[in-house]
Amino acid sequence: MPLNSFKRNKIIRSPQFGIDNKEEIFSIIDDSYICHVAFQINNQVYSIPTIHARKDYQLYLHGASKSRLISHIESGASICVSITEVDGLVMARSAFHHAMNYRSVVLFGKGRKTVGNEKLAALGIISDKLYPGRWEDVREPNTKELKATSVVVIEIEELSAKIRTGPPKDEKEDYSLPVWAGVIPLKRHFEAPEKDPVQDKNIPYPEYLENKFKNI
Amino acid sequence: MPLNSFKRNKIIRSPQFGIDNKEEIFSIIDDSYICHVAFQINNQVYSIPTIHARKDYQLYLHGASKSRLISHIESGASICVSITEVDGLVMARSAFHHAMNYRSVVLFGKGRKTVGNEKLAALGIISDKLYPGRWEDVREPNTKELKATSVVVIEIEELSAKIRTGPPKDEKEDYSLPVWAGVIPLKRHFEAPEKDPVQDKNIPYPEYLENKFKNI
Repeated sequence: MPLNSFKRNKIIRSPQFGIDNKEEIFSIIDDSYICHVAFQINNQVYSIPTIHARKDYQLYLHGASKSRLISHIESGASICVSITEVDGLVMARSAFHHAMNYRSVVLFGKGRKTVGNEKLAALGIISDKLYPGRWEDVREPNTKELKATSVVVIEIEELSAKIRTGPPKDEKEDYSLPVWAGVIPLKRHFEAPEKDPVQDKNIPYPEYLENKFKNI
Repeated sequence: MPLNSFKRNKIIRSPQFGIDNKEEIFSIIDDSYICHVAFQINNQVYSIPTIHARKDYQLYLHGASKSRLISHIESGASICVSITEVDGLVMARSAFHHAMNYRSVVLFGKGRKTVGNEKLAALGIISDKLYPGRWEDVREPNTKELKATSVVVIEIEELSAKIRTGPPKDEKEDYSLPVWAGVIPLKRHFEAPEKDPVQDKNIPYPEYLENKFKNI
């Protein structure tokens, strides 16, 4: 299984931050709204942000059919995806031990194009991640739009995660220094929905999303 | 100048989102706490998150001297760095026009190792970005710590940015659909500092950071 295969991205420097619980790793992937995809074309490496959604060991990305990122993934090339959330700034008594609290996943795999029903289902998976129920409410993609959009699925071959939490860790002899030490937590939050100003005032905010954006 | 050279990362699909104001691009870089670095070693591409700080067209990264990321940058290889902040979820009347509001920078360059005073100054730049005034307050790095830490500077050769803001853009004929449309703004915020629980209660939160983490 992918989780036992860390040969490419094993955690070399900070083994104490590594985690090996599949559900915990998946929750980092699912909790984040964007990933960064690394790939190389003609000796030039690229890092591109994009939306992702996951189901089991499959990661779905979508984009304009003609985009460099999507075309390259469709070609079956090896790619690397990283997903990171910063949770806090960690202030130690020494400059050296300053850190961040974070959750981070790095995964490797190869992608392929989806077509037909798989493509429609994949679009639904991406939509459901962000807005469960929305897919049934909005106008579905027409033939032209489906042609302009490609959806790729990346079969995750390897993945690993690192998490740092908690207060700073200083050298023993530094704990007596009179320097404030601790954590500044960094969080995300949603603000109240902003209705499209040109829309009729009588159209209500969707019931199926009533509780979706109250917290993260 | 770098800003006029877009040959590697010119915006092909969404020219309307491209921005060319240097200060605006810099502010996206500076506003973000992490970047994702893409690089390739032995035919394997990697995407790794790390802290960054910028001064003019120089991007500073640091890490364990023996880390794969830092060693590779020190070798002078071409790398690509992307920095992204999600600002909101954009809900359109059609599935196709759903989007995100975001700010994103992609930059290219080559790195080199810093040594001596340049290295110390670079560590100060990284520290000052997060905690202005902190560098003078904490115990400075000793010889062993400095040896364990490498700082690289990437001379930015090319960069470009994309920003999306505002309400959804739907097809003309869809504006009459009775589907709620608008934006859910996504923001970051800091929570109250959490003092290291083992620290003496009489040590106050630093005055120089009094107003630093009240907003972002």
